[in-house]
Amino acid sequence: MAAGAPGRNGPILGAGSVLRLIRDGEAVTRAALARRTGLARSTVAQRVDALLAHELVYEAGGEASTGGRPATVLAFNHHAGVVLVADLGATHSRLAISDLVGQPLAEVAFDMDIADGPEAVLGNVDERFGALLEQAGRTTGEVRGVGVGVPGPVDFPAGRPVNPPIMPGWDGFSIPDWFAGRYDAPVLVDNDVNIMALGEHWSHWRDLDHLLYVKVGTGIGSGIVSGRGIHRGADGAAGDIGHIRVSEHDDAICRCGNRGCLEAVAGGRALALRLSAAGIEAAGSREVVELVRAGRPEAILMVREAGRVLGDVLAGCVNFFNPAAIVVGGDIAEAQDHLLAGVREVVFQRSLPLATRDLTIASSKLGDRAGVVGAAIMVIDHVLAPDAVDRAVQGDVTAA
Amino acid sequence: MAAGAPGRNGPILGAGSVLRLIRDGEAVTRAALARRTGLARSTVAQRVDALLAHELVYEAGGEASTGGRPATVLAFNHHAGVVLVADLGATHSRLAISDLVGQPLAEVAFDMDIADGPEAVLGNVDERFGALLEQAGRTTGEVRGVGVGVPGPVDFPAGRPVNPPIMPGWDGFSIPDWFAGRYDAPVLVDNDVNIMALGEHWSHWRDLDHLLYVKVGTGIGSGIVSGRGIHRGADGAAGDIGHIRVSEHDDAICRCGNRGCLEAVAGGRALALRLSAAGIEAAGSREVVELVRAGRPEAILMVREAGRVLGDVLAGCVNFFNPAAIVVGGDIAEAQDHLLAGVREVVFQRSLPLATRDLTIASSKLGDRAGVVGAAIMVIDHVLAPDAVDRAVQGDVTAA
Repeated sequence: MAAGAPGRNGPILGAGSVLRLIRDGEAVTRAALARRTGLARSTVAQRVDALLAHELVYEAGGEASTGGRPATVLAFNHHAGVVLVADLGATHSRLAISDLVGQPLAEVAFDMDIADGPEAVLGNVDERFGALLEQAGRTTGEVRGVGVGVPGPVDFPAGRPVNPPIMPGWDGFSIPDWFAGRYDAPVLVDNDVNIMALGEHWSHWRDLDHLLYVKVGTGIGSGIVSGRGIHRGADGAAGDIGHIRVSEHDDAICRCGNRGCLEAVAGGRALALRLSAAGIEAAGSREVVELVRAGRPEAILMVREAGRVLGDVLAGCVNFFNPAAIVVGGDIAEAQDHLLAGVREVVFQRSLPLATRDLTIASSKLGDRAGVVGAAIMVIDHVLAPDAVDRAVQGDVTAA
Repeated sequence: MAAGAPGRNGPILGAGSVLRLIRDGEAVTRAALARRTGLARSTVAQRVDALLAHELVYEAGGEASTGGRPATVLAFNHHAGVVLVADLGATHSRLAISDLVGQPLAEVAFDMDIADGPEAVLGNVDERFGALLEQAGRTTGEVRGVGVGVPGPVDFPAGRPVNPPIMPGWDGFSIPDWFAGRYDAPVLVDNDVNIMALGEHWSHWRDLDHLLYVKVGTGIGSGIVSGRGIHRGADGAAGDIGHIRVSEHDDAICRCGNRGCLEAVAGGRALALRLSAAGIEAAGSREVVELVRAGRPEAILMVREAGRVLGDVLAGCVNFFNPAAIVVGGDIAEAQDHLLAGVREVVFQRSLPLATRDLTIASSKLGDRAGVVGAAIMVIDHVLAPDAVDRAVQGDVTAA
């Protein structure tokens, strides 16, 4: 950028930054905003007027004065729009509509096969988004953002799945392009385990900087929260622990084409296959959990051992990444405490004492809802980011 | 914080933020700074005056005008102070003095045993700091910050080593307290591999968001660059890959008390012990490298195999963290390309294609200097952070 040229992102302290200070409760009167930002009072007044015109803030009444006349308190209007989110699983999906603080207004969960391909799946999703809007009494025009989680790796900036092994027909498919024209709002796409990690972190572990969310279902994956944000890695592939090699299991052939992958040893599909081979019928991870709940010793033993194998991989992740907490979710994690017991046993034996002295290993608290909660937070953070708010307000000014 | 109270950090766009815009070349005239920040011209003038008074910026002359009279260009004064840094190894250390853009002014490397304990080691360091200052023609009063890297885990906010296995006498020792009174400047302490990672990233890989630096010397450790900053983890233990368990090596007993750790199989000490047991004398990692350079097949075979074992662990790190590059340094990495060949062989075989399609695996370009370069950058980033500059400028105003 040429020296002296206007910054490509507009002023650093635009309306979006002022909105952030109001949302965070850091400065909620015009006078406090001027003190906190260093902006002239007339500039602050302009920014606030733009936010009021956009109904992103409202005047919430007077504040107890410290001497002079009471100043008007500004508050974030979390009804200023809604976000629509979809957590698409291999065979089961959940959709939700929420307000701008992540409060759910309506939700729906249903069976749907991701392998039906993008046109069929997204058509179904969009129809149900319409029903959710109606249920919540909101309109298409109020949609500020759309979030979609998918069970595979994603090129996050482009919103396209990349070589997703269990999503035939989706490779390189632009989900934002498909939604273009339906809503006047950005569409964000991420890996399902990433949004689950974000949902768990935001709901129950917000004070921690670094957290690892592990989903153990049919397959095994993880989502990494680093510095309170999702670490997606250089290619959007971060967190894919299901294909880390585990010791002494080279007989297990994995769907990825390698041998001895964690998922091929300790994933729900692998456990179901092994139980079936031992004459105990189990079609998938849910049946394995049912067998554990019914007290079948073979299934309990197998889940416990799967926990140990998972623990061996997670011990390495703990040494490498040193998270403050590991949260375990997914079908198999619901197999009472047997999986977690195995994980804890090995992690606390194998990881370095310094990295485990304050480490918490817990089960998911949001369960099936982690994905839609996290997707909503991801979208809200995006549409209320200072730059995005500046652009929205700017667009309005230009249009006027 | 009470609503409406002044922010605890002062104005968001204080003198420190203005300095950052000037340093980054984003806005280098008073008019451009006003446009970019949204601050009133009078407020910008105040901020610039404070920076001029502190000699953090200077007026570099006129700029080609676009119509009106030429505006004065402001430039960062990187001679406004110096930083002193020490990269302390187990038996070998390097100290440096640099200006405020990380340009080295003088350096010294020498043998010193970290096991001599903090008083002896830091006394030696401080004496040599004095000599470096003299050599560079600078004074104690010009020291803006001190950075120290140590070969063990560090409680970064406190500047204390935590249970460092090869640093007897250092556990919990406050290095900043020891330096207190010697310099009127902050003292930062970090793990040596972290500062090496920062040095390599800053010098040669600045465009990459995520990088992994691996040091293979007597032991094995790594430093993680995530989102262009060091990821230290919840307890400052991140990157400790030397104690991740490797497959099929449960006979190797590690100094940490576990079996089958990477370091106990592929570290320089382990290789030297194994060569010695085979009748080929090797006291440590340097002798192993000399044997490789001399073309001894047993040593070459062993280093190549160590590369494969390291590759097995790094393949897991690649799946988990998805870095854009892995940079390998340390004594053993200097054993020509044999180590890297083994690493590449296994990582590209074992990691997921998506995570390796753009992955670079390269040897360190800074070699022995990575630590002092990174320590200088760490200290400069700290002392020129907007908050720190605001406090420095504020202190001056209060004192005046």
